[in-house]
Amino acid sequence: MRIHAIALSALLLLAPNAFAEGDAQPTPIAAAQANNIIIMIGDGMGPAVTTGYRYFQDNPDSEEIEETVFDRLLVGMASTYPAHQSGYVTDSAAAATALAAGVKTYNGAIGLDSDKQPVTSVMRMAQQRGMSIGLAVTSQINHATPAAYMAHNEHRRNYAEIMETYVESPADVMLGGGRNYFTPGMLATLKNKGFAHITEYSKLDDVASPPVLGLFGDVSLPRSIDDTNPERLSLLTEHALRLLGQNPNGFLLLVEGSQIDWAGHARDIHGVMSETKDFAYAIEVVEQFVRLYPNSTMVVTADHGTGGLTLAKSREYLWQPQVLHNLTASLDTIAKISMNNPGWEAEIGDKLGFGLTQDEWQALSKAQQMDRDTGEPKQFTKALKALLDTRTNTGWTTSGHTAVDVPVMAKGRGAELFIGYQDNTEIATKLMSLLPKQENTAGQQAHTEYSASKRIAVN
Amino acid sequence: MRIHAIALSALLLLAPNAFAEGDAQPTPIAAAQANNIIIMIGDGMGPAVTTGYRYFQDNPDSEEIEETVFDRLLVGMASTYPAHQSGYVTDSAAAATALAAGVKTYNGAIGLDSDKQPVTSVMRMAQQRGMSIGLAVTSQINHATPAAYMAHNEHRRNYAEIMETYVESPADVMLGGGRNYFTPGMLATLKNKGFAHITEYSKLDDVASPPVLGLFGDVSLPRSIDDTNPERLSLLTEHALRLLGQNPNGFLLLVEGSQIDWAGHARDIHGVMSETKDFAYAIEVVEQFVRLYPNSTMVVTADHGTGGLTLAKSREYLWQPQVLHNLTASLDTIAKISMNNPGWEAEIGDKLGFGLTQDEWQALSKAQQMDRDTGEPKQFTKALKALLDTRTNTGWTTSGHTAVDVPVMAKGRGAELFIGYQDNTEIATKLMSLLPKQENTAGQQAHTEYSASKRIAVN
Repeated sequence: MRIHAIALSALLLLAPNAFAEGDAQPTPIAAAQANNIIIMIGDGMGPAVTTGYRYFQDNPDSEEIEETVFDRLLVGMASTYPAHQSGYVTDSAAAATALAAGVKTYNGAIGLDSDKQPVTSVMRMAQQRGMSIGLAVTSQINHATPAAYMAHNEHRRNYAEIMETYVESPADVMLGGGRNYFTPGMLATLKNKGFAHITEYSKLDDVASPPVLGLFGDVSLPRSIDDTNPERLSLLTEHALRLLGQNPNGFLLLVEGSQIDWAGHARDIHGVMSETKDFAYAIEVVEQFVRLYPNSTMVVTADHGTGGLTLAKSREYLWQPQVLHNLTASLDTIAKISMNNPGWEAEIGDKLGFGLTQDEWQALSKAQQMDRDTGEPKQFTKALKALLDTRTNTGWTTSGHTAVDVPVMAKGRGAELFIGYQDNTEIATKLMSLLPKQENTAGQQAHTEYSASKRIAVN
Repeated sequence: MRIHAIALSALLLLAPNAFAEGDAQPTPIAAAQANNIIIMIGDGMGPAVTTGYRYFQDNPDSEEIEETVFDRLLVGMASTYPAHQSGYVTDSAAAATALAAGVKTYNGAIGLDSDKQPVTSVMRMAQQRGMSIGLAVTSQINHATPAAYMAHNEHRRNYAEIMETYVESPADVMLGGGRNYFTPGMLATLKNKGFAHITEYSKLDDVASPPVLGLFGDVSLPRSIDDTNPERLSLLTEHALRLLGQNPNGFLLLVEGSQIDWAGHARDIHGVMSETKDFAYAIEVVEQFVRLYPNSTMVVTADHGTGGLTLAKSREYLWQPQVLHNLTASLDTIAKISMNNPGWEAEIGDKLGFGLTQDEWQALSKAQQMDRDTGEPKQFTKALKALLDTRTNTGWTTSGHTAVDVPVMAKGRGAELFIGYQDNTEIATKLMSLLPKQENTAGQQAHTEYSASKRIAVN
């Protein structure tokens, strides 16, 4: 079982003196005994993604195929259907509301039921009970999935309204993208509430304790492979655990590999695999945490499938992901290089990292020429994806979501609750059953603050 | 939890006096206490199929979506990759060899490893230990999946050679298709070994005890919806349990929903759902059996995904299977009606069972005209599938298989062994661990007979 180096380095943050010489015992964090809960969502991470990741990570020269962290932690599967009015195919908002609050709702709804009534998320319940709460995501922090845990809104697209809730009723740790949604006034309000505000990954080390607002992108974070730190979600997760773990009452943390879904919508198999890789490393960080602190619970799942991704297409019994390892930039970045750039072939050849055939170059050239008229690398992007889909033999059927059930992984206290088939709403109710009892005066105070500040954008 | 009527009727066969008046206890079968094993394979039944079946069975007018038998029994998932030389996408032969004998092999191999050496299946091990063995399938009985449990051959297509093993070293109960593979000599040999030979479903009631050869199709059985008894696999399963259950040493039974895969290859969503339905009913029969006789073990899985089936396509967040319930014949049957038939529109409209739009009729007419030149309803079949894919919003990417992991369902003794992620080879080894010990003289005799008669078509 290979644990990525980043998960081992996380031990240093989470268990000071873990590697001290002599007989010194590791100093456990304050939340060591608490019933911490870590919820990890791979947005759009259907079974084809977790299966594909195993083969993507496989060394093609050896006979053996290693198990992945998904394999180690798998316990069951979940249905994802939204409320009846929305059919069988969910969006991320309805799915996140189900996962967060245990209630089916219409596509687009944030923390509201089908009658547009607010429903309480397991994150806010945890907060009411004196636990610290946090989120670490690769989207803007007010994107649908984290929003359903934090806020209530008739529609996910009301990003500004949703972010207001984050200011009035913040989580203790909020890490992700979304600089553009914060006015100076909003930042000042959070500063007055004691929030550190950082905008670079390197500054995480300077944050000694919560609360903290970390905004590392104007909207979303850059693509993993384009980012200054490709393993940014693991990094955010490590620090979130370190900071939230200072609360002896424990914490609830939401981690999201948000961009797996975006790559799926874009039918970008390279993006799907590289975003899944960062998410998998983040899962390993949490896996190590739960190994150290087994009173904690981790659950990993997806909200739905995206793109109708299939591992083979046309007729060949073949899926060959290895070529994807050669790329050193995202498809969007590579496509931009094709615009107004006489040296595009050499640069793109370099970023792709593998030799193209004559026919492949011809197809890219043709697309590049068509784009000259429009000023956008649309045809080039399309041609590049077609090239990689052919090389890998990857299939796609939609630019939207699909209804397929998703895998469920779990470890730690109560992991056995998630064995077998469950509906996504049951994941919420099972996690709620694992919360500590409601006997904490600090929790009561938090509840009062929340009720006073809660803004619900309903009729 | 709704149990289909057929499963309840199976109780009458399996527990005589189950519904007797007064205080009469049901008479258990001879194998009541034995460690019976029932292996059920949905060929090509990837996660999109089991998910889709839930929505296919859903009553669209009610809010609630019922769990299926797949949901009730789900315990984990399995990887399906073949031996290294064949890549990540398996065929049914390599997958069945893995499931039967616990060994990875090349695509096409029947009961042989990568070096073409014979590997012993859990079915033959059971036979060696004095258990009765049987198979109930909707393909010809010597098709790849059952063949890997029964025989050894360099390639699955050597149907005649494979069937010779079935005659020399038969299973006690062999039910499925394949009349064309039996010469009078072969039938005579089996008759001398005590086999009853039947060719109609109604004759199953006349078979008081094993051994029996039941051949209900020249090659495969008809499509479920075209068959004289659409629930034929449930029927075969009921009788197999009744007959095999007469052995106090117990039995191992293989049941296969073979044609789910064929419908997947043909990108026929109606075929996939209707074959899955018959398979699901057969699973319920076995579910009831294991409930009655909990020393038994049932495992249900698939060998691989087929067709790159996706539950939605294009861009709509929509999958609408209900229209499929209107059809009263298979797509192949309906397509044949279009040939040389002036009244085709009325007849086909009747068989489809729902009203077509003008555009839909136009598309079918156009296809029907194109087929006049070729004499085969190829274009019509294509147009009909396109119509249903549009109506249901179903996606497909391949006429072959895909690498996606498959669901694993289990119940009874040792079901917990199958929880979580496993490789398909582990399913075989886990089942082997559940076999009774090798201490039975009748078993030794069986073993000797088998060794003498075993034919292995290798170099």
